[in-house]
Amino acid sequence: MSVVNIGLIGAGTVGSGVIKILNQNKDIIEKRTGVRLNLKKIADTDPDRKRPVRLPKKKLTTDARELIEDDSIDIIIELVGGTKIAKDFVVGAIENGKHVVTANKALLAHHGKSIFALASKMGVEVGFEASVGGGIPIIKSAQVGYAANNILSIHGIMNGTSNYILSKMTDEGSDFDDVLKLAQAEGYAEADPSFDVDGIDAAHKLSILIMLSFGIFLDFGKIHVEGIRGITPLDISFAGELGYKIKLLAIAKSRADGIEAGVYPALVRMGTQLADVSDAFNAIYVVGDAVGPTMLYGMGAGMMPTASAVVSDAIQIAKEIGSYKNSPGKANNSIPRFYDNTKSRPLIKMSDTTNKYYLRFQAEDRPGVLGKITGCLGRKGISIESVIQKGRHLGGGDVPVVIMTHEAREKDLLSAIKETNSFLSDKSKTTFIRIEEVQ
Amino acid sequence: MSVVNIGLIGAGTVGSGVIKILNQNKDIIEKRTGVRLNLKKIADTDPDRKRPVRLPKKKLTTDARELIEDDSIDIIIELVGGTKIAKDFVVGAIENGKHVVTANKALLAHHGKSIFALASKMGVEVGFEASVGGGIPIIKSAQVGYAANNILSIHGIMNGTSNYILSKMTDEGSDFDDVLKLAQAEGYAEADPSFDVDGIDAAHKLSILIMLSFGIFLDFGKIHVEGIRGITPLDISFAGELGYKIKLLAIAKSRADGIEAGVYPALVRMGTQLADVSDAFNAIYVVGDAVGPTMLYGMGAGMMPTASAVVSDAIQIAKEIGSYKNSPGKANNSIPRFYDNTKSRPLIKMSDTTNKYYLRFQAEDRPGVLGKITGCLGRKGISIESVIQKGRHLGGGDVPVVIMTHEAREKDLLSAIKETNSFLSDKSKTTFIRIEEVQ
Repeated sequence: MSVVNIGLIGAGTVGSGVIKILNQNKDIIEKRTGVRLNLKKIADTDPDRKRPVRLPKKKLTTDARELIEDDSIDIIIELVGGTKIAKDFVVGAIENGKHVVTANKALLAHHGKSIFALASKMGVEVGFEASVGGGIPIIKSAQVGYAANNILSIHGIMNGTSNYILSKMTDEGSDFDDVLKLAQAEGYAEADPSFDVDGIDAAHKLSILIMLSFGIFLDFGKIHVEGIRGITPLDISFAGELGYKIKLLAIAKSRADGIEAGVYPALVRMGTQLADVSDAFNAIYVVGDAVGPTMLYGMGAGMMPTASAVVSDAIQIAKEIGSYKNSPGKANNSIPRFYDNTKSRPLIKMSDTTNKYYLRFQAEDRPGVLGKITGCLGRKGISIESVIQKGRHLGGGDVPVVIMTHEAREKDLLSAIKETNSFLSDKSKTTFIRIEEVQ
Repeated sequence: MSVVNIGLIGAGTVGSGVIKILNQNKDIIEKRTGVRLNLKKIADTDPDRKRPVRLPKKKLTTDARELIEDDSIDIIIELVGGTKIAKDFVVGAIENGKHVVTANKALLAHHGKSIFALASKMGVEVGFEASVGGGIPIIKSAQVGYAANNILSIHGIMNGTSNYILSKMTDEGSDFDDVLKLAQAEGYAEADPSFDVDGIDAAHKLSILIMLSFGIFLDFGKIHVEGIRGITPLDISFAGELGYKIKLLAIAKSRADGIEAGVYPALVRMGTQLADVSDAFNAIYVVGDAVGPTMLYGMGAGMMPTASAVVSDAIQIAKEIGSYKNSPGKANNSIPRFYDNTKSRPLIKMSDTTNKYYLRFQAEDRPGVLGKITGCLGRKGISIESVIQKGRHLGGGDVPVVIMTHEAREKDLLSAIKETNSFLSDKSKTTFIRIEEVQ
């Protein structure tokens, strides 16, 4: 039995989960893997806050450097979050020859390239299974399971808060603001929900999957990111009538001339696996040229699921350390190799993508308006699959006109919308949502 | 770039897929992993049969021993199938210090224990991602992704042929025999479909997942296995009315006193992820104490998906060989450690399990029959959730009586059925199907 010493920096929710797993599943982990994970030290700035687990006093410190400088510690688990002090800890640990496990998607999205380069130089591992999809084993699958494939596309529901809000809006016909308040009260959304509902968290995760799948280091600010604040019960209801649900998707597609990447709400057809991912669940739908369509589903956040991923990384690294105790500094076989395809596979602008669209116009209810709208679309080469025009029986006033298009260039769509807005009574109501036909 | 030499034994459908991937995705694999997989030799008893790829003549032999005895070959890929000659090849390769990759579930279900023990002794790897769920990365997930968890249950749709047949029966209301013939004509079922439709293939796969998840080596003959030949359109239709689909599930559940394991058709609630796994797709739903419910979904068979899994194993082993070229015989860190829990966690008899049941009786349409049936159930302590009795308006003759029970011991259920059969007009029609409430 080889014993591997762990230093845990950050004993908040996920950190408490890690401590809990290492206690309660100690025996099964040792039996299954042949390694003992010994939690040697824990650093937290607030040792006295209320936690679901008791912290062993003698292992506790408020100074993370103590762990980073402790020669007996093999693996540092970083659960501080953010991109500043967490970066210092991670870089410091790697520079001191320690393996690192982190759940920090923001850190890897912004500084992954330099961190992995440093780890590779130092011959240490960086485990980051917990950074995407909580306990869902998507990182290992991207690194190993799909390694034989040319990845064609990724469609991820990777933010539990947004998916929870959209699910509630769909089930109950409620407004975004009302559901957000409810989600905040229930602990499904943060006091400042921006990272979640504005798509930033999902974009962090997407950029990690793009690194693994395509070998591309995206300039994070260049990813097209839309959140769900603009989604209305009206659009959810029309989408339902048309056989679709609205989901916040993180999407990457491989094209001959580059990579499309974006986070945005999209219509997905009911009855498909992705459409059925409800509440706070996550799922990542990956299509490879050999494996075909696959999907991994589970709880994308939370204390225990995220801790499950953190500990699985620690176990894997510990097994490697155990196997090569006599060859230190050589256990670097599962460090992702970041072949850099960034130059040869540029990020494609959203305006150069081709999609099917759900469009909703707020139009005066008088003869000829529908004709004018479809005329604008037609002139830009956008062909229409179906139209819903409701509320004529109410007589007069504005009515919503919903149009589903066939595949069209986004550039052309935006140009057509500019034109329709010139004659619509309330152009602020014009809405377009992309349609993703996944399996 | 480290070059690793591969010997491929068996160039049938999946073998052809492996050759195709190694050709077409050579560059991406090398970039992504830093290893070159060199297909050095191919053995097949029938080199001239029609294949979707061309076999390079000079690499070809009809004698698999040539590969096993070739000192320059690092990894043997065994795609012969069956448990006899394939076993000789696998054992021979391991004894010669070669790593092995296999898709052979029957071999591992029957001889896994001795094969893994030998591999462990020889310090070589055995990769078997392709043995369960085709290209779905379930094996690596069970070995690594869920390693921190105490696994609570597994529910797998792991036989594509059966799932295809049940999906068609559900969509079209057709009989088993008719759909089977269609499936055979379309290539979804073998001429002898027994392995697939009688649950044996799914049981092979289940026993592999049980090894990984619970550390239990099942005596294969003791797993409870039922196939789908007895499923009728009538039961599918009643199940649908009650909000369920019928799926062939491979199930393992952890109990304090042991492990439940079985392959049988079961009712799963519509709108859940498992119920929506249609056609030839596979999915494995795993619940861990930390990670919670997870599901992995994809194509469970076929040339390219299975080859994707085979090549992913070869890549992983090759990366390890590459990292430790100078320490031969040490690269055994990912060999599953088969802690043997078999004695402490016995297989529980089906009669000692507790389930909810769908029951269908063929009863004479006269007053009192329903009362007699429910009386039998009541005396055995089986309580009823709902009843459907159809066809009374036809007057006279036999009618189906469908009963959904609450949780009951299978022993009690069988005893109640014995009693009802004593007074039913056609006891051969009495049907019971377990209900699995998954998420």
